[in-house]
Amino acid sequence: MQSLWSRPDSGPAVKHQLSDLLTPCLVLERGIMKANIQRMADRAAGLDVALRPHLKTCKSLEIAGLIVPDRSRVTVSTLQEAEYFARAGFSDIMYAVSIVPQKLQKIASMNKQGAGIQLILDHPETVSAVSQAAANLAVKLDVWIEIDVDGHRAGLEPDDPLLVDVAQRVQESDSLTLKGVMTHAGESYECRSVEELEQHAELERRRCVRAAKILRSKGIGCPQVSVGSTPTALTAASLDGVTELRAGVYVFFDLFQAGLGVCEVKDIALSVLTTVISHKVSHRRLIVDAGGLALSKDRGTAGQVHDYGYGLVADAKSGQAIPGLVVTAANQEHGIIDLPSGFEFEQFPLGSQLRILPNHACMTAAAHNHYYLVNGDDRVTDRWDRCNGW
Amino acid sequence: MQSLWSRPDSGPAVKHQLSDLLTPCLVLERGIMKANIQRMADRAAGLDVALRPHLKTCKSLEIAGLIVPDRSRVTVSTLQEAEYFARAGFSDIMYAVSIVPQKLQKIASMNKQGAGIQLILDHPETVSAVSQAAANLAVKLDVWIEIDVDGHRAGLEPDDPLLVDVAQRVQESDSLTLKGVMTHAGESYECRSVEELEQHAELERRRCVRAAKILRSKGIGCPQVSVGSTPTALTAASLDGVTELRAGVYVFFDLFQAGLGVCEVKDIALSVLTTVISHKVSHRRLIVDAGGLALSKDRGTAGQVHDYGYGLVADAKSGQAIPGLVVTAANQEHGIIDLPSGFEFEQFPLGSQLRILPNHACMTAAAHNHYYLVNGDDRVTDRWDRCNGW
Repeated sequence: MQSLWSRPDSGPAVKHQLSDLLTPCLVLERGIMKANIQRMADRAAGLDVALRPHLKTCKSLEIAGLIVPDRSRVTVSTLQEAEYFARAGFSDIMYAVSIVPQKLQKIASMNKQGAGIQLILDHPETVSAVSQAAANLAVKLDVWIEIDVDGHRAGLEPDDPLLVDVAQRVQESDSLTLKGVMTHAGESYECRSVEELEQHAELERRRCVRAAKILRSKGIGCPQVSVGSTPTALTAASLDGVTELRAGVYVFFDLFQAGLGVCEVKDIALSVLTTVISHKVSHRRLIVDAGGLALSKDRGTAGQVHDYGYGLVADAKSGQAIPGLVVTAANQEHGIIDLPSGFEFEQFPLGSQLRILPNHACMTAAAHNHYYLVNGDDRVTDRWDRCNGW
Repeated sequence: MQSLWSRPDSGPAVKHQLSDLLTPCLVLERGIMKANIQRMADRAAGLDVALRPHLKTCKSLEIAGLIVPDRSRVTVSTLQEAEYFARAGFSDIMYAVSIVPQKLQKIASMNKQGAGIQLILDHPETVSAVSQAAANLAVKLDVWIEIDVDGHRAGLEPDDPLLVDVAQRVQESDSLTLKGVMTHAGESYECRSVEELEQHAELERRRCVRAAKILRSKGIGCPQVSVGSTPTALTAASLDGVTELRAGVYVFFDLFQAGLGVCEVKDIALSVLTTVISHKVSHRRLIVDAGGLALSKDRGTAGQVHDYGYGLVADAKSGQAIPGLVVTAANQEHGIIDLPSGFEFEQFPLGSQLRILPNHACMTAAAHNHYYLVNGDDRVTDRWDRCNGW
């Protein structure tokens, strides 16, 4: 039977089984995802901070609706996401990539319709250019100053004199309002134990709060302090002085997060459904139809204790991981699974399906336009869209 | 000025400059691409074989039209591509991923409308299953047997007794017709010199032709012998006994192909346009808005003499590479370019644009829905679509 879902635009959602789907495609375990969402909501409540989830992982209205039922206070990574969520009524949207003036017209137009998109910046020249562009567009913008807590990427260190300079320039602009300081402790991904993560979370908290205090000591209003990454959010002992927490990948989790120790493999809600398309008996290999495009070329687990190649194989119906079975190599549309001793080809007949748990859920999901929802078995209950691209 | 192209579905193509485009996006150099296309056409003609270009790299009607003006004899890697090109009148389409019966209904439906999609297989069980499914769908199908010349992926070795078994089962099926044997010398990507590539091309030719001869010696008709990969296609000294050549990435080329020695960096037609969004002076880093999603996480050049990180930086207007400047790290929407000594931040102002030449053009292009066409300068002449997904 051809699936009604075999093409993205081909009709209404009806009941299906995974075996009806054309592979490769994304499978999402609803119950696991909901537990992940609840876990982070409980964390934020327990730490007495607001949660500003990062929607760059899910890029889905339905999932965002589960995370943020009131459609407020979210983070996005592209203008495409900003527009997609704003159109659906989401507001209080932090666009968490350093702003450049070229992107302001689109943002201004969305904000005039109530999107409440806020910008991040870290350079005096950017403040001047954005302020001028905002004035030209007759729009007022809320901005955050990005703080660098661990040398990961961009942002100003708390004690950099430019921090006060940037904040003062924001204050002096008629077009800009300082919302606060924000940081992302990206180097938490380099931690190798939960103890290290807890220390890193404290570093993130302490340095970002310090930046806010320095600004306040200069008489500059800095109402908000926003920190976060999934690993630090789940290990922080205290978020004293912080007002909000940002995190994204926890909604799905992935093998990299399991390697960090902040989740278990059984908590991974996302996988790629694939079909066994060839048996290469002489080389003891299964060939599947999920390759580098469907899985992504992210090799994030390469440096961890468990290197899962391009993903860990799981049973298609139950979603249970099959320890020891990983995607060893990935060409564009071919995945290669080396069969270790103890496994037999008969366990994986030609035409049978498998799921592949991803190294990095954000990257893997981005190749796909849809999620197929299941809940602990192989019955497909829904198909939800994603907004990819820029 | 907001670009009319700032959103994918926003109106007609008008004249623009690169500086009007929202980044990240794909830039395609028309003149370089046309020269690459001509080079492979000349190779095939010089080797006296037909060319069956692989459209998995470009996934574009306009580009495919330049490569195959008569819209016949092409290769695809997904059913999505098959459908996209078939709808536009392309025919004689090889779907070069091992077939499973689940995908036959869609193929049958396209073939009933004249697509002429041919399948590849390498296993007796697959022949039986596909033959049965084809009979149920009342459709006749042309199939190729995949040959393994170098242990790269799937396929049968020429001397494997299963080869004759598979071919005889095809011959015995009322639904299937054997078109020939085909191979892809994927291990050519491991070669480290043009001399090694030439030897590998000869291996590919010799072993695939041998498979055809074995079948013919058993009285099995095997009219076609199809080989190819961009590196072997460009280095083969002879294709004696071969009837057609397949290759895809040559249309754009990329840093990996340059590292193999089959093109130069100046022959790379594809790049990602990006904007400098932050200066991290303390770490001597530029931050740009092309990250792991826009560039892909493919690290194919990691094992080559020149490791280009996540891509080589080029001047935005001219497209000329800037030797020594590479994308050192890539988060989802952030690229980090370490500035070696000799470079100054003033050369890369905030808000200025750069192009990034890709490690692997097929993977990089797949994150984007459009190409923006230029020709040696920064004037954008066209926007062409891609068909991504499955």
